[in-house]
Amino acid sequence: MTEPPRTQGRRGRPGYDLESLLMVAVKLFNERGYDGTSMEDLSRKLGITKSAIYHHVRSKDELLQLAVGRALDGLFAEVERLDEVEGPAIDKLEQLVRASVGVLVQELPFVTLLLRIRGNTKVEKAALARRREFDQIVTDLVSKAAADGDLRPDVDPATSARLLFGMVNSLVEWYRPRGGVDAETLADAVATVAFDGLRLQRDT
Amino acid sequence: MTEPPRTQGRRGRPGYDLESLLMVAVKLFNERGYDGTSMEDLSRKLGITKSAIYHHVRSKDELLQLAVGRALDGLFAEVERLDEVEGPAIDKLEQLVRASVGVLVQELPFVTLLLRIRGNTKVEKAALARRREFDQIVTDLVSKAAADGDLRPDVDPATSARLLFGMVNSLVEWYRPRGGVDAETLADAVATVAFDGLRLQRDT
Repeated sequence: MTEPPRTQGRRGRPGYDLESLLMVAVKLFNERGYDGTSMEDLSRKLGITKSAIYHHVRSKDELLQLAVGRALDGLFAEVERLDEVEGPAIDKLEQLVRASVGVLVQELPFVTLLLRIRGNTKVEKAALARRREFDQIVTDLVSKAAADGDLRPDVDPATSARLLFGMVNSLVEWYRPRGGVDAETLADAVATVAFDGLRLQRDT
Repeated sequence: MTEPPRTQGRRGRPGYDLESLLMVAVKLFNERGYDGTSMEDLSRKLGITKSAIYHHVRSKDELLQLAVGRALDGLFAEVERLDEVEGPAIDKLEQLVRASVGVLVQELPFVTLLLRIRGNTKVEKAALARRREFDQIVTDLVSKAAADGDLRPDVDPATSARLLFGMVNSLVEWYRPRGGVDAETLADAVATVAFDGLRLQRDT
């Protein structure tokens, strides 16, 4: 996500540009909850005045919008890239699962925040609407793959879609970049478990 | 979970016993966050005075303890029941996955609260310690099943365990008892996806 035009060229005190301010804000929101964090808390954490923060953003809401926007833009960029995938719906679905794991790892604090919002404000409601749009794309791909006969028929597509992204989204609860597996190994693991299952198929 | 002895025989105003008070409290905690909910909020929601609440519990913390205790007791009861399962670790693991889905569906608001706490208080820390103990039991079962050669060797046991319960725990984010699939169908779906994968294995 690029900076919105109105903040172009604006710079705060040395050490904080919009990007680093956003990183600190998102970390704080994730620790204390968005509702539980005031601009006062943020100013204390940053060691700058509130007016220095308002130099970069209009409101706490704008910080939230930038943060969840980054997560959503990352996910939707991967949806658009699916046009390049040749092959049936199950291949696109697997690609989207792998790419989503990549976005989660890359934008971990932003996606974590996105997955925790509950829709209390206009910004949150708009973000939840885009999340539902993404979920619908996943559900449509699952339904198409099921219609193609590529998915097992004993689990209904809606449940499959939710379990699939339930597994992907669970990463925000436990994945830590340092000391853990890298994004590609993780994407392989998720795709393998989701599509082929944990059990060793001895007969194949 | 049974009521602790000190609340035995205590009854509030007509319409609220400890159980119904706890249900309302947990619903509110899940909506607003535990930290974001005051006893004042709870008293307003219940339409009773704070002292009427203190007739049942000593503090907000005690409500949290009762709530997460119910979720944890439910999960650990299923761990104990594994002794009755004859067979290798993978069978016990599959049984624990199915039974955990049952607990999540049965105690949905309580498990939801458990999965959202962050360890800010003594009660929360104690609950997180029991969660880690449960997670360790799952990881041990996965490791044992992998050592038995029953799990695919290309995903490491720690990641498998996390993905497995990441999928199970995601239910609290999307499963709604009314109008959805029942607990048994859901447990079948989770076990099928987790162990055998979504892809139709055409050769078997």
